[in-house]
Amino acid sequence: MLEELKKQVFEANLKLVEYNLVVLTWGNVSGIDREKGLFVIKPSGVPYSTMTADDMVVLDLDGNKVEGALNPSSDTPTHLELYRCFEDIGGIVHTHSPWACSWAQAGRDVPAYGTTHADFANGAVPCTRGLTAEEVGGAYERNTGKVIVEEFEKRGIAPSECPAVLIHRHGPFTWGKDAFKATENALILEEVCKMAYQTESVAALGQDADIGIEDYLLDKHYQRKHGKNAYYGQK
Amino acid sequence: MLEELKKQVFEANLKLVEYNLVVLTWGNVSGIDREKGLFVIKPSGVPYSTMTADDMVVLDLDGNKVEGALNPSSDTPTHLELYRCFEDIGGIVHTHSPWACSWAQAGRDVPAYGTTHADFANGAVPCTRGLTAEEVGGAYERNTGKVIVEEFEKRGIAPSECPAVLIHRHGPFTWGKDAFKATENALILEEVCKMAYQTESVAALGQDADIGIEDYLLDKHYQRKHGKNAYYGQK
Amino acid sequence: MLEELKKQVFEANLKLVEYNLVVLTWGNVSGIDREKGLFVIKPSGVPYSTMTADDMVVLDLDGNKVEGALNPSSDTPTHLELYRCFEDIGGIVHTHSPWACSWAQAGRDVPAYGTTHADFANGAVPCTRGLTAEEVGGAYERNTGKVIVEEFEKRGIAPSECPAVLIHRHGPFTWGKDAFKATENALILEEVCKMAYQTESVAALGQDADIGIEDYLLDKHYQRKHGKNAYYGQK
Amino acid sequence: MLEELKKQVFEANLKLVEYNLVVLTWGNVSGIDREKGLFVIKPSGVPYSTMTADDMVVLDLDGNKVEGALNPSSDTPTHLELYRCFEDIGGIVHTHSPWACSWAQAGRDVPAYGTTHADFANGAVPCTRGLTAEEVGGAYERNTGKVIVEEFEKRGIAPSECPAVLIHRHGPFTWGKDAFKATENALILEEVCKMAYQTESVAALGQDADIGIEDYLLDKHYQRKHGKNAYYGQK
Repeated sequence: MLEELKKQVFEANLKLVEYNLVVLTWGNVSGIDREKGLFVIKPSGVPYSTMTADDMVVLDLDGNKVEGALNPSSDTPTHLELYRCFEDIGGIVHTHSPWACSWAQAGRDVPAYGTTHADFANGAVPCTRGLTAEEVGGAYERNTGKVIVEEFEKRGIAPSECPAVLIHRHGPFTWGKDAFKATENALILEEVCKMAYQTESVAALGQDADIGIEDYLLDKHYQRKHGKNAYYGQK
Repeated sequence: MLEELKKQVFEANLKLVEYNLVVLTWGNVSGIDREKGLFVIKPSGVPYSTMTADDMVVLDLDGNKVEGALNPSSDTPTHLELYRCFEDIGGIVHTHSPWACSWAQAGRDVPAYGTTHADFANGAVPCTRGLTAEEVGGAYERNTGKVIVEEFEKRGIAPSECPAVLIHRHGPFTWGKDAFKATENALILEEVCKMAYQTESVAALGQDADIGIEDYLLDKHYQRKHGKNAYYGQK
Repeated sequence: MLEELKKQVFEANLKLVEYNLVVLTWGNVSGIDREKGLFVIKPSGVPYSTMTADDMVVLDLDGNKVEGALNPSSDTPTHLELYRCFEDIGGIVHTHSPWACSWAQAGRDVPAYGTTHADFANGAVPCTRGLTAEEVGGAYERNTGKVIVEEFEKRGIAPSECPAVLIHRHGPFTWGKDAFKATENALILEEVCKMAYQTESVAALGQDADIGIEDYLLDKHYQRKHGKNAYYGQK
Repeated sequence: MLEELKKQVFEANLKLVEYNLVVLTWGNVSGIDREKGLFVIKPSGVPYSTMTADDMVVLDLDGNKVEGALNPSSDTPTHLELYRCFEDIGGIVHTHSPWACSWAQAGRDVPAYGTTHADFANGAVPCTRGLTAEEVGGAYERNTGKVIVEEFEKRGIAPSECPAVLIHRHGPFTWGKDAFKATENALILEEVCKMAYQTESVAALGQDADIGIEDYLLDKHYQRKHGKNAYYGQK
């Protein structure tokens, strides 16, 4: 069943490898068929290099496995909660991509520092509150989903305005109209997190006269390559 | 028409991927035929992997589409403004390469810190002023071009002396005698921005005696590999 | 002899290259046959590109070479000491992967900053004390093993709880149930060390209002791509 | 003439690309035949992708071109000076690899922070003094060589003890017994410079209790993957 969706979710999972967002078996992508009320997700702990479309697991929105020989991703209850509460999304991605995880581990929202961010989200990418000991000790993965939804509601952000969130001390979830768009958003989030760090670093460092190139050396190198008597390269 | 130029612009766009300067559909390259007064540019939002030379869009210097089935890059009016005002340039590139964007987002000129920079530009790479709300609300992309030109005029820099600029909160534009040279300059700018950050960081950090290797360990490792009685490797 | 184990250790060594954990001839992997009391290790200073499974060296737990034409890794006595004292491990890896080495050179434990770390180890990854001049001047590589074991005993950590250690001023050792699992742990340690650095950096930097994107520019870029009148891309 | 050496120097130049030490036409490798008193070097500004062994240029130790249709590297006089004064070296490499250039641009020696460094050099990698305006205005590239030799003499370092130097505001030169060993040293220097920066950064950052993972979350993730009732992955 859902052969087309399983193929799509399978291929979207492989995109995580192509985009350098995952190592080993980390990360998972899912996609939903809203009409049938069923979603398809990566199996848990299976290597990307040997995985097939048939390994994808089909579940209903109560979390019951409908098809598939393997266990679904251990993060399935988080996906489930997001599909339930964010009614317009069609695909979800979770990775441990390093820059997004670093902002999550630092517990910081990612501020909007430029147009790359603005092309992606209509404001800062939120980092959730930390889960309580009770939430972690209980239905942990489902509570992770609840905390995401709580954060968006509390801040009045529509999921369509910001297709990404950071889980405190954990890492990113992204979403989109389908599984492919959700993986693209995972890639963009990683770029945005990397650039936000770099932007803060560049801004924090200052211009230090002691390390500027001397004028005569600047001029020499510029002229030997671009000047009237340039001698770099062939005629 | 302009089949040769379309092929060149197409191939120069693919260079952005080869140089690791773009992800997804980010970035665009254009090239101009000065005699005919026509320029060729990447279509908007088309993936590099499926794009063909025939997808390139031809425009005149009033911004009218002369040939092409697709919409040109949304940044076309910026290219247009630069071709109009920088009369000697033959190709233009815009990317969101991460180091150049980070300097742009921090709103800083890139200081000339060494000969790699001097081989490229005859002084700091300028970052423009930010566009005003009026400029953003109006002909935004064209105003971006105007702000670049204004910056070079205000500072008395000839476009040939510095083939690159950073747009405040946005990212880089580079140019050159043709589309290929402009993409090379996009690559060099990214290297220069990365090195400038690293140079400031290395200069800001100091030598900390607490983390120097102990002399006896230094000597042991050096001797076991290079000394008279070295035992690393095969005979 | 031990053809299967030699093949496994050989392939695990190549994984170090695939995982980008080594350059040149750096790094070494070993695996043990507990029943026979023999272990297999990479030869010293042999390039990964020309190495074959037959080049692997077989040793007993007294350090005697049992089979192999080449010298074993110069780090063999460290592996030996770990196999003796950590009785449940089946494979060991040593690399000079840059992030793990940087924490080792700085002489710092890697704190547990998030769930990526928690999926790997049940607390901080320990950095050993430095070896004394006497320990370096004596049976240096074997003493390196002893210092690792001492550190785990002193802290009361079971090797199964934390499959990695940093040697002060040197670099990482990792282990696992077999040679493949040990290489996976080498990869995870490198990711964890990189993220720990990034997390501390992101936390140390602050939000600086001066570098936030202006609201009108944020809105312009968001709307031109996602708004009702979006003009990015094709229809 | 010198067909074997030309082939070797050609292949060593391609190693710079394989090792990710150069972009575009940056960098150059040379090798010397001490008996004949001739050395072979890369031509200036020729792309690595189209270059052939026949493009290599042969010069004598007075700097006269003995064979070759193309101009030799513009850095040839620096190579020449080093071959004259460092009588035991057989190959030389110059790159603009980013980490080595960043230390050079910052004007700092690279301190010995660990055994990766100790395996390479018997102490800090020196950064030369800056060239004077007179030295830059005169025989610039030859003076660059003289300043390197001066630095090693002043500090009493034998070229064999440290196969690398940083030119102030410029970048690295490395050497070795032949062209291949010199390229390996260029790669190792880049790794050492990167790790030295990272080591200083990790040491400068501190452990911040605010960003440690909560114990219950650490335990949850560790147990769900490794505990008795682990539910990550397949059975």
